[in-house]
Amino acid sequence: MADIFEVPQPENDLLEKADQVRLASIKISQTQNLNRIQALNCMADYLEENTKKILEANYEDYTRAEEKGISKALLSRLKLSKEKLYSGIEGVRKVGDLADPVNQVQIKRELSNGLILERKTVPIGVLGVIFESRPDAVMQISSLAIRSGNGVMLKGGSEANLTNTAIVKALKKGLDESGHDKNAICLLTSRKDSMSMLNLEKYINLIIPRGSNELVKFIKENTKIPVLGHADGICHLFIDNEANLEMALSVALDSKIQYPAACNAIETLLVHKDIAPVFLKKAIPFFNSNDVKLIGDKRSVQLGIKYEASLEDWNTEYLDLILSIKIVDDLDEAISHIQKFSSKHTDGIITENSSNAKKFMNIVDSAGVFHNCSTRFADGFRYGFGAEVGISTQTLPPRGPVGLEGLVTYKYFLKGHGNIVDDFSSGKATYTHKDL
Amino acid sequence: MADIFEVPQPENDLLEKADQVRLASIKISQTQNLNRIQALNCMADYLEENTKKILEANYEDYTRAEEKGISKALLSRLKLSKEKLYSGIEGVRKVGDLADPVNQVQIKRELSNGLILERKTVPIGVLGVIFESRPDAVMQISSLAIRSGNGVMLKGGSEANLTNTAIVKALKKGLDESGHDKNAICLLTSRKDSMSMLNLEKYINLIIPRGSNELVKFIKENTKIPVLGHADGICHLFIDNEANLEMALSVALDSKIQYPAACNAIETLLVHKDIAPVFLKKAIPFFNSNDVKLIGDKRSVQLGIKYEASLEDWNTEYLDLILSIKIVDDLDEAISHIQKFSSKHTDGIITENSSNAKKFMNIVDSAGVFHNCSTRFADGFRYGFGAEVGISTQTLPPRGPVGLEGLVTYKYFLKGHGNIVDDFSSGKATYTHKDL
Repeated sequence: MADIFEVPQPENDLLEKADQVRLASIKISQTQNLNRIQALNCMADYLEENTKKILEANYEDYTRAEEKGISKALLSRLKLSKEKLYSGIEGVRKVGDLADPVNQVQIKRELSNGLILERKTVPIGVLGVIFESRPDAVMQISSLAIRSGNGVMLKGGSEANLTNTAIVKALKKGLDESGHDKNAICLLTSRKDSMSMLNLEKYINLIIPRGSNELVKFIKENTKIPVLGHADGICHLFIDNEANLEMALSVALDSKIQYPAACNAIETLLVHKDIAPVFLKKAIPFFNSNDVKLIGDKRSVQLGIKYEASLEDWNTEYLDLILSIKIVDDLDEAISHIQKFSSKHTDGIITENSSNAKKFMNIVDSAGVFHNCSTRFADGFRYGFGAEVGISTQTLPPRGPVGLEGLVTYKYFLKGHGNIVDDFSSGKATYTHKDL
Repeated sequence: MADIFEVPQPENDLLEKADQVRLASIKISQTQNLNRIQALNCMADYLEENTKKILEANYEDYTRAEEKGISKALLSRLKLSKEKLYSGIEGVRKVGDLADPVNQVQIKRELSNGLILERKTVPIGVLGVIFESRPDAVMQISSLAIRSGNGVMLKGGSEANLTNTAIVKALKKGLDESGHDKNAICLLTSRKDSMSMLNLEKYINLIIPRGSNELVKFIKENTKIPVLGHADGICHLFIDNEANLEMALSVALDSKIQYPAACNAIETLLVHKDIAPVFLKKAIPFFNSNDVKLIGDKRSVQLGIKYEASLEDWNTEYLDLILSIKIVDDLDEAISHIQKFSSKHTDGIITENSSNAKKFMNIVDSAGVFHNCSTRFADGFRYGFGAEVGISTQTLPPRGPVGLEGLVTYKYFLKGHGNIVDDFSSGKATYTHKDL
């Protein structure tokens, strides 16, 4: 895709829309916490008032998609049941309960007499969100954007256009009624616009992709705008020779099968050679009875794994009931394998030896390093953030599951009384650097 | 430069060096605070022991550069006096006094009974630093890297090769003697290597450029590695109609002339039309007597400014005793001009009207928004960070002057006792989300 497709330059009508969102985002960035909570409630009210229209639009989208022969998985994500819609509306209200991420004072410091520095969190500006299917994502991401004082340009899958349009219409009405600029939320419906968005670096401050690895990879390679998200989730679990066998089995199974399509599910199990025979003897029938296909390296094939792994397996995110298994000589080999193949999402160790656990957790350079628990805990809600706007596998912050804090940045506010730097050079004034 | 120059792929010997730094960086990332302080002291000791050799090397570099006819500005930055060297060595020790940026607990939370999440700061990994001339920067950046548990690959200007080599030799000796892997610091001396560094995204986690705007721009456009720094520093000062005239003059002068080559010096002065006649009447002779060339828009030319500005002037970072002046109708026009031309570094307002100040500071989307003080305060040392590794003009953190916190990231450590997600789905376990 990246090789053949040229990202188009935005046309004038898109630039105009983007400028409207930018201007609205400045207005919403100036609002108080209570105004934004009110906006969310009003948005939820209008969604409720329009549930019939939204569900009808979704029925229409669904019927058309079915006729086109779209895949079952996509159809099921497209389908907005009454329950899903109401739970989405409830979600919009709940975002109001999250702590205000804006105007948080991070630093307050007297630099010198009468010269006060403050570092406060501020909204990022305009978010660009590109997602596939899932009309419920429109409600979720719009409410998170408004909660954090940002504007948002949304581009959903074309198969959900009618539903998304009905939802956004209600959301904008809610914004408007609560006294906000309705242009803070903008839905783009053509594929061309969604691609041109990637060239809106003067208007959009952060891109949040929600979709396939391929989509995320393409976006990352084709925009100068920072991207919050990750392409691959190649997670590992290492069973140390000092592991509790029962725990190892239970955590390995949960990490694989609890939701295999999730990015925090494991793709590779690394097993210490000393524990491998007894572990695999128990694990193979256990995984088999849970329909997990096991693919192993030479040594594990000798111990009963049916399929032999190729080099590509260590690089593959199956997102399915498939697990690759490799037997390693020791902790160091496990760490080396992870350093080579991990996508730096989440990697875990099962061991009763705390110094092995410590070494593993310190050296493995992934966003999450887990000891004696399932990798499936790597998630913003489970971490207690109340929301998740994405999971980042980059080294620099924000890293790992990102909550509302990923939708704000900070700014330095310096207030003086005519203070000049020359007075400090000449010795007339001195720095006090006193935290207030 | 960007158009014609292809960044070369790293050759094998560079890959080998990079891998050595990576391995050393893992070792240094595991060390305790006191070990790293000891390393800094030992590095300083060896620099002291080798001052004669370093100064001789610098004399040799300087002589060769002079023969080549290198510019005076570059020569003066290249020159390492005894005083500069000793103050640099003192600086290395002082970095040890800065608070340890590593292992800081940012979140400690019980997710559920026996399942504890910690978010702790960790070193970034390997820093790639590209700078021009200034051999003192080698001491400074190496000590900051070691303080924060990172490895560092350095590439200085070729005119300073002998000096840099002598300094790095002493630094590595100090690392070695204090029990650390000396490969944590690596100096590259060929131009080709420095460019290939930009393709070392598998080894280098952050590039810090120190040099001309052109160099920074080139680097940003030619690497996938995150870059900490900024190209332009187009800063503005707006003189509101409710400004204190004396203060406005003094702050405007300081913001321009205190060190005109600095990125936080102003390039454009915006003046409210109502105060412009009286302000300019005082300001013109004042700036003239300080050798500042004034370039103005039409209206300010009518009020006595000699040279008329072109559109390009509003986009130019003079880095010199030149100042562009524009008369605006009101606060809104000042803000619009800044939104259009600011490089989002630092912009200030002079006014006695606090609601104007508040509006300006809230709407102007720059890393620093200043009220009644000089833009020259935008600096890591003046902010009290103890060090500055760069100033970032991007919207997302780290933003503005960045201290040691820019050389660390964070990681999530989750420790359990066999906890699995399925128990939460089935209702066997519940989340507590209790901050500890």
